[in-house]
Amino acid sequence: MQKIIGVIGGSLVDPEIYELARAVGQKIAREGFTLVTGGRTGVMEAASRGAKEAGGLVIGILPGDSSTEANPYVDVPIVTGLGIARNSIIVRTAQVIIAIDGSYGTLSELAFALQMRKPIIGLRTWDVDETIQKTETADEAIQLARSFLA
Amino acid sequence: MQKIIGVIGGSLVDPEIYELARAVGQKIAREGFTLVTGGRTGVMEAASRGAKEAGGLVIGILPGDSSTEANPYVDVPIVTGLGIARNSIIVRTAQVIIAIDGSYGTLSELAFALQMRKPIIGLRTWDVDETIQKTETADEAIQLARSFLA
Amino acid sequence: MQKIIGVIGGSLVDPEIYELARAVGQKIAREGFTLVTGGRTGVMEAASRGAKEAGGLVIGILPGDSSTEANPYVDVPIVTGLGIARNSIIVRTAQVIIAIDGSYGTLSELAFALQMRKPIIGLRTWDVDETIQKTETADEAIQLARSFLA
Amino acid sequence: MQKIIGVIGGSLVDPEIYELARAVGQKIAREGFTLVTGGRTGVMEAASRGAKEAGGLVIGILPGDSSTEANPYVDVPIVTGLGIARNSIIVRTAQVIIAIDGSYGTLSELAFALQMRKPIIGLRTWDVDETIQKTETADEAIQLARSFLA
Repeated sequence: MQKIIGVIGGSLVDPEIYELARAVGQKIAREGFTLVTGGRTGVMEAASRGAKEAGGLVIGILPGDSSTEANPYVDVPIVTGLGIARNSIIVRTAQVIIAIDGSYGTLSELAFALQMRKPIIGLRTWDVDETIQKTETADEAIQLARSFLA
Repeated sequence: MQKIIGVIGGSLVDPEIYELARAVGQKIAREGFTLVTGGRTGVMEAASRGAKEAGGLVIGILPGDSSTEANPYVDVPIVTGLGIARNSIIVRTAQVIIAIDGSYGTLSELAFALQMRKPIIGLRTWDVDETIQKTETADEAIQLARSFLA
Repeated sequence: MQKIIGVIGGSLVDPEIYELARAVGQKIAREGFTLVTGGRTGVMEAASRGAKEAGGLVIGILPGDSSTEANPYVDVPIVTGLGIARNSIIVRTAQVIIAIDGSYGTLSELAFALQMRKPIIGLRTWDVDETIQKTETADEAIQLARSFLA
Repeated sequence: MQKIIGVIGGSLVDPEIYELARAVGQKIAREGFTLVTGGRTGVMEAASRGAKEAGGLVIGILPGDSSTEANPYVDVPIVTGLGIARNSIIVRTAQVIIAIDGSYGTLSELAFALQMRKPIIGLRTWDVDETIQKTETADEAIQLARSFLA
């Protein structure tokens, strides 16, 4: 069974955040982990792109009714048709969560991850709970994630 | 069609919060609004009890597979079987949200309410966004709620 | 707690089926039961209309993101945002199912009701299992439903 | 993006059906398609096992709250926590459905597949609609599936 890391974050991001999420995706794939995201734009796309560039497996858990809304780096689109209720599935499917930036959708995912007691690593994201482990770089984030999956 | 107010908040609360939520429930019913909650304990039960005491209609949107998990003040248990993914349904169904105290589950509901741009009134709850209108008493909360439903 | 009967059936129906579903809704309300449907057109609307005409309480469990898609006889629109995945909620919420006519959506609801071992009463609907109790009139259907809720 | 075939069917099956589902899984993988199932026992396990034996990628869309309920041949457990409401996700995610044997859960999935107008291939399963293409062997089933994905 694959070890799965979830990357959550904003769907609209600036180039600096995009590159950060892409670097995180690359490192996830290089470590041999599978990536799960919400399958769409912004941080979701950047992490998917990074993972794909490094030869990894990319799962996208989509809100809508069609796989056409997936970003081009998703290998396996899970088409839920549930709208934002799909956010809980992303979190439940991941063994570790890396949160990068993000708005209200990301906040709902963080809340679910806190409720499910999943390990959470934060990169410039919501600061709502002390159990979210704050990091500054993709390297730090992936090292922490690896420690939780050992 | 009924005008519906959602009350969200912790499932484990101290007596002071319980009485506050009960007072909010009473006022919701006295104004002629229907109450929706997650149907279980703590703030959900207290608000349901207050609304029932004042002759109101109480809807409980339950996470599990059976109506037996509803608190005794629920008139209509909606049995979702969805677990915490039901949180988004509570928020979508309510036209105004009153948040009282609460932990991570409440935070996920606040996040969904913010994403859906629902009016949110906060009573001693998470302070995560400036659009959450902070109030101190059940009276203030219900007056604000009424203004949104006029 | 209300006793709840679910009426499921086609969203596009001929006038005869419409009047049959309306009569079923009337009888549900006259017996003091709450009606739950999928909240939309056809059989859902006809049963809601009948129940409303007889002074009953009408719950509509909607697939979309807004209460505006409810038929005009719904008192309490439950706005799920889940699309057709909401079908399982209708069935779980009802203690007895009355199926009238219907296409594939109704078939999915019948399948869920069979899986959950709910009592099912059929009026000119899918004949897929011997445990679906076939009836010919609204009167027969409501008498059977009443026997399950005694 | 992967081409995805969904295999649906009973969770309790006799050895003959098990071997049929396993053969279908093997052929799915040999054709280079990704397999999605409900991730549990019976037909789901047999197809997953076959696909894994042939080196394919196996996705399991689980009903419960934990990946531990996945059968041992699942590579990527999607942990929905939605109970049987997850059935609609299996069908939406697959581009073609192969139904083998099965009880009420399978019937709900067939109903959703019919509603979504997905191509459906049936092997000794529910005979509820003329658009379900009946086949007798794993070879016939996979040839038909391939024709839909060309």
